Amino acid sequence: MTTDPFPKEAAAHLSLPGGAITIGGMAKGSGMIEPMMATMLSFVTTDAAVPRGLLDRALREAVNDTFNAITVDGECSTNDCVMLLANGASGTTVDEASYSLFVGALTDVCRELALGIVRGGEGATKLVTVTVTGAASAEEARKAAKAIANSPLVKTAVHGGDPNWGRLIAVAGRANVAFELSRAAVSIGSIVLFRDGKPYDEAAPLAAEYLKRAEIELAVDLGVGQASSRVWTCDLSAEYVRINADYRT
Amino acid sequence: MTTDPFPKEAAAHLSLPGGAITIGGMAKGSGMIEPMMATMLSFVTTDAAVPRGLLDRALREAVNDTFNAITVDGECSTNDCVMLLANGASGTTVDEASYSLFVGALTDVCRELALGIVRGGEGATKLVTVTVTGAASAEEARKAAKAIANSPLVKTAVHGGDPNWGRLIAVAGRANVAFELSRAAVSIGSIVLFRDGKPYDEAAPLAAEYLKRAEIELAVDLGVGQASSRVWTCDLSAEYVRINADYRT
Repeated sequence: MTTDPFPKEAAAHLSLPGGAITIGGMAKGSGMIEPMMATMLSFVTTDAAVPRGLLDRALREAVNDTFNAITVDGECSTNDCVMLLANGASGTTVDEASYSLFVGALTDVCRELALGIVRGGEGATKLVTVTVTGAASAEEARKAAKAIANSPLVKTAVHGGDPNWGRLIAVAGRANVAFELSRAAVSIGSIVLFRDGKPYDEAAPLAAEYLKRAEIELAVDLGVGQASSRVWTCDLSAEYVRINADYRT
Repeated sequence: MTTDPFPKEAAAHLSLPGGAITIGGMAKGSGMIEPMMATMLSFVTTDAAVPRGLLDRALREAVNDTFNAITVDGECSTNDCVMLLANGASGTTVDEASYSLFVGALTDVCRELALGIVRGGEGATKLVTVTVTGAASAEEARKAAKAIANSPLVKTAVHGGDPNWGRLIAVAGRANVAFELSRAAVSIGSIVLFRDGKPYDEAAPLAAEYLKRAEIELAVDLGVGQASSRVWTCDLSAEYVRINADYRT
């Protein structure tokens, strides 16, 4: 049993045609977090039997939209890793036919671990989901979402409960991706603050109320294409500065 | 006369073969600073007569290693600009022969203005010069220097007076540039803390003492080639968070 206030343990139980299997995992990390799969610790196990090639493919796929989609401070650590071990003890084998079920459950476990890391981020008081839509490509969507998720002005605005759509638009505009202001949109939760080149400042008080929550959704549409990406971050607090200014390695 | 505690005014007087000229400038800005020459306000004037093509070339050259080499928070603003106006009132013309003298003085003026912006950065208590040497190319040197200058872990370490060479090496290693740890080096001021793959932790107390200064030099050698770059940044303080969490646009 964990005593971590931000648990980083997760499990999934899955019935496959060949039998039932379990996937379990645990992770650690709270600062120096923007993994590029060199530097954070996470261990995932399963009692399924999985051919090596399939296991590798499943982990890469699951990690891409979970561990590789989180950032606390934009700092890749020097020892990130996710290990996936499969011992076959369930007697059930994962094959091409059951692969998508397996990778879906594996992704759920990885996402739960990754979000645990962000919730427990240094100085963090809020978990922030950044969704970018309307991008020219998946790469550009991810690039814009990461720029927003690492922006100190966005992260301090969230910390201060400020529904500052201008900072979101400004970061999208400087993210070096295709962006069309006249078709762009910004919402905080389900509250639209900017659309078709026009601000809706009358909605700001509602958005400010929403920002008091512990889990926040920010969405930016780049107004260009159909691609999207989702990343997770936390707010930037004075406590983050205190922790890292006082901490001596 | 300025009443700004961090003056952003500068002037240079220059004797050219054809006569004496003056270059003067002023700037504003303290947050949302990592200009990509779209977004900050700076005006530079000269009484020299300068042909349009030469004036354009001189400004681009001067800006590259001054305004485009500073960062407060990695946030490009939406209205950065540097304007250079030449009215010829001195009666002296700048030509190809005197160009390098002119661009040198212009660069001095721009550097002084740019450093004024960083000194007055939101929440800043220290001006930090980051020099990267031993890079494979000038672009890679600049990229690594910018990564270091925008690293929250480096900026909080400087704020806390922590001679943390590990954070400098870690950022260099994740900056996506050629880097050779066994030939890399880190110094703070003139104090070497890491060289040829070996830390010199006995020098840490001296470096900690040095970090109490208001103007700090950080140097990282990537151990690969001959190219170098210099950028300027400030420390990251709890005050930066307070200013930007409380500020409502």
